[in-house]
Amino acid sequence: MSAHPTSHPAPHPARGLHLIADLAEGTAEALADPVLVERVLRAAAQAAKVRVVGLNLHHFGPQQGVTGVALLAESHISIHTWPEEGVAAIDIFVCGPHADAWAALRSIEAGLSMRVAAAQAIPRLGARR
Amino acid sequence: MSAHPTSHPAPHPARGLHLIADLAEGTAEALADPVLVERVLRAAAQAAKVRVVGLNLHHFGPQQGVTGVALLAESHISIHTWPEEGVAAIDIFVCGPHADAWAALRSIEAGLSMRVAAAQAIPRLGARR
Repeated sequence: MSAHPTSHPAPHPARGLHLIADLAEGTAEALADPVLVERVLRAAAQAAKVRVVGLNLHHFGPQQGVTGVALLAESHISIHTWPEEGVAAIDIFVCGPHADAWAALRSIEAGLSMRVAAAQAIPRLGARR
Repeated sequence: MSAHPTSHPAPHPARGLHLIADLAEGTAEALADPVLVERVLRAAAQAAKVRVVGLNLHHFGPQQGVTGVALLAESHISIHTWPEEGVAAIDIFVCGPHADAWAALRSIEAGLSMRVAAAQAIPRLGARR
């Protein structure tokens, strides 16, 4: 969780940046673990240098998926997992010049021991908070 | 909130569909109203025929923005508002053959009395829940 990423491009110059990433090759055990998902969300927020104002998790049952969303002063980070397929869908939507969405994504990859299968970065409108 | 949309394309055949929409021309009053934002989130979920498993709202203060996320059995719907600019950023990420993301977007447009300034539909991987 370095504060100054070097392996990814700098954040998009638009004030709102939304990273959408689908991750693969996760273990069923990790992806069905709500405690881990919450820890990963909080670590991602810390890596992005954003402030968590709320956090909500839902576990669909033993060996089943987890949905978690961190509400941020700068928008949100969400994780949805499908343990049976080893995949997770990640959204990192952050606003402001100091938020580092790419650092959050690297933190989530590392925290869940997964790799990014597909990702895109989308600038968002009106992003001032 | 018709069950069978006619004015938008049918949902993407991929099982996960993520609509990203930036809305404009909202009133400052509506966009600073957390009660309205919660009602709009719940109506959007109903329009999409999805199930809310959690809901979290944060109001940044009087006359300030609201962040709300509905956690769904089918992923999530989020709304971030910027009353001072009359804009809102919407995400509707739904999985499964019955979820109607476009109906949710129309419901949010109507509920907030705004218009879509930019939107895109992104198929997401591994979408089975």
